[in-house]
Amino acid sequence: MGKDVVTRVRQLAEEMGLDAVVAMSTANVTYVGGFEVPSQSLVPSRLVMCIVAAGSGSCQVVVNIEESLTRTESALDEVVAYNEFTEHPVDVFADTLRSMVPKKGRVGIELAHISAEAYERLRTRLGGAIELVDASELFTKARIVKTAAEIEAIRTVARLAHAAHYEALAETRPGDTELDIASRIISNLLGAGAEHVLRLVVGSGDRSWHANPAATSRVIEAGEMIRLDIFASKDTYLSDVARTAVVGTPTSEQADIWKGLLELRRTAFDMVKPGASTAAIYNRYRSGLEELGFSPINFLGHGLGLELHELPYVDRYSDTELEPGMVLSLEPYVMLPDRNWGFQVEDTVVVTEDGVDVLTDVHSDEELISVPLGAR
Amino acid sequence: MGKDVVTRVRQLAEEMGLDAVVAMSTANVTYVGGFEVPSQSLVPSRLVMCIVAAGSGSCQVVVNIEESLTRTESALDEVVAYNEFTEHPVDVFADTLRSMVPKKGRVGIELAHISAEAYERLRTRLGGAIELVDASELFTKARIVKTAAEIEAIRTVARLAHAAHYEALAETRPGDTELDIASRIISNLLGAGAEHVLRLVVGSGDRSWHANPAATSRVIEAGEMIRLDIFASKDTYLSDVARTAVVGTPTSEQADIWKGLLELRRTAFDMVKPGASTAAIYNRYRSGLEELGFSPINFLGHGLGLELHELPYVDRYSDTELEPGMVLSLEPYVMLPDRNWGFQVEDTVVVTEDGVDVLTDVHSDEELISVPLGAR
Repeated sequence: MGKDVVTRVRQLAEEMGLDAVVAMSTANVTYVGGFEVPSQSLVPSRLVMCIVAAGSGSCQVVVNIEESLTRTESALDEVVAYNEFTEHPVDVFADTLRSMVPKKGRVGIELAHISAEAYERLRTRLGGAIELVDASELFTKARIVKTAAEIEAIRTVARLAHAAHYEALAETRPGDTELDIASRIISNLLGAGAEHVLRLVVGSGDRSWHANPAATSRVIEAGEMIRLDIFASKDTYLSDVARTAVVGTPTSEQADIWKGLLELRRTAFDMVKPGASTAAIYNRYRSGLEELGFSPINFLGHGLGLELHELPYVDRYSDTELEPGMVLSLEPYVMLPDRNWGFQVEDTVVVTEDGVDVLTDVHSDEELISVPLGAR
Repeated sequence: MGKDVVTRVRQLAEEMGLDAVVAMSTANVTYVGGFEVPSQSLVPSRLVMCIVAAGSGSCQVVVNIEESLTRTESALDEVVAYNEFTEHPVDVFADTLRSMVPKKGRVGIELAHISAEAYERLRTRLGGAIELVDASELFTKARIVKTAAEIEAIRTVARLAHAAHYEALAETRPGDTELDIASRIISNLLGAGAEHVLRLVVGSGDRSWHANPAATSRVIEAGEMIRLDIFASKDTYLSDVARTAVVGTPTSEQADIWKGLLELRRTAFDMVKPGASTAAIYNRYRSGLEELGFSPINFLGHGLGLELHELPYVDRYSDTELEPGMVLSLEPYVMLPDRNWGFQVEDTVVVTEDGVDVLTDVHSDEELISVPLGAR
């Protein structure tokens, strides 16, 4: 995806009158550089900067230990490395930037991601000649509409995540722990070609309704609910697919809630098309859920791509007009703390030229998943 | 670990004349709050702040969707939630902070982690009465010496990671992909009780010498080298254990290099004790490796805990006097790009009152690991 993205980012920089734009957040570095610098998120002091100049020229500034890998994988023209122990990354970045833009240039950087300390050091090192402006909007604009390659990457990982739910739950029995389920899911995902499992939500029993609980050694018992949400990646793009199960046969009340959520999902899918209002989709969902007697959380969905939550949100407070190429994860969700019940069904769709394309495979899930009570 | 840590952080804040100290980075939020806020690293806009006031009082500020989980798990006295869509986290944080410290208070924050944008907003919202100073040194000082509970957490995950290398490589055969190995390692780790696998380094053949390559679908062939490094977590503490294998029988040259690395490892272990100089340990390693005919990278090791690289470094440029409770990952590493060979052996140790305690189980690895050529 690298070269297309560089072209797109350069074009937006030129439209905004910038001499260069710089990615520094993990997601935007991955987006612009075309690969994930391995230790960027693991060792926060190893700053990475991707500079795309207007006209021509691009450069990735990385820690010396990852210089060779970056030379092999980066989509950018040049790689400059700093010595982790003797040079400050910001100094090397500032000097590189100065060599790539006019003396009184205007450069977009991520003010919501560069640290206060790094920003101060950068301004001092640049000596005031170069004007720094916020580039958040540029990256949002670039990333909110996905390229065909990005959509296919998201489709691939969404389908892997969808299948992993069903495979792992089919093998689950009462007496298993949440970690047993997590282990099966991850093994399935990696065996099927996923690269990372960033996080798994595995909430059973009184943890099933909480947002985002990680798997623990809690033993799962008959009659309990299990809520799963899979955040995995392939080719650096993420899945966000959630399903719900009950251990044993669902009660009719549980089956009805699930059926209600699937109807709300269908309605939401049907409303997704170019020109549609995210507020209208949220409000339709909200009133539908309230008719079922439940209170919705503040959002039904969100963009998905290199990050778990991207724009646009489908929420109570904002409104975005959908455009072809926007990718959404939609997640009808009911939390019932008093019952120890949590229900969630989450799928990923892309806005097409005339409607919606559902990227997850939703044909097999008309019934609430039942974990068998018998022996494996 | 929560309450002990809060006491320690509070004491350091008081010693530094602060009215409160605030954790904002993922690692320090996890350290002070005593648990990992699930979406902090996945959704960067969901800022989390842990405020520890001098004297008494502590509060965790989180996104509303994770309020219930935080109330269940946080070690801090209070939880304050902001509405993700209608409130800026910094505003809620600033107002909470103001209610916890004197009008002209002095507060430590992480200037290397708060964004330039958030810092500007915080200063505006606080109106200049509260003095903000950098708290990096406080957190470094707190975390560089581990508590007994932290050491046991690191020992547990180090042993899981160590075992996972041998188990996964015993099942590996020529024709497997790097992803096959990754899948086995992760399955073993989670089955054994690890919580997350943050990243795996799986580099085979011409990728074996690079720093930090992720697993790919590259097929492994007879005669190639495989270098693995496992970054997994349990109870939020990390492993960093690396091993090397050759597919088939090692050549005598390969066996000799491995033996040389193990001798350098032994020498390093023997030098670790209270009062020892990290520079002396690095220099002994460097000269030993040079005697073998190889060039060392700039560091032999680093602290390990909630983050992959913590202080102290054992490197070419700095010098730290070791103290009991410091945890080090030591990683003799030889990169031979011209041969497509990468050798690494990495283990974790803790400085004790009178020497060293090796946390990984190093008894079983006297020979370079050989991946069998036959059928599984």
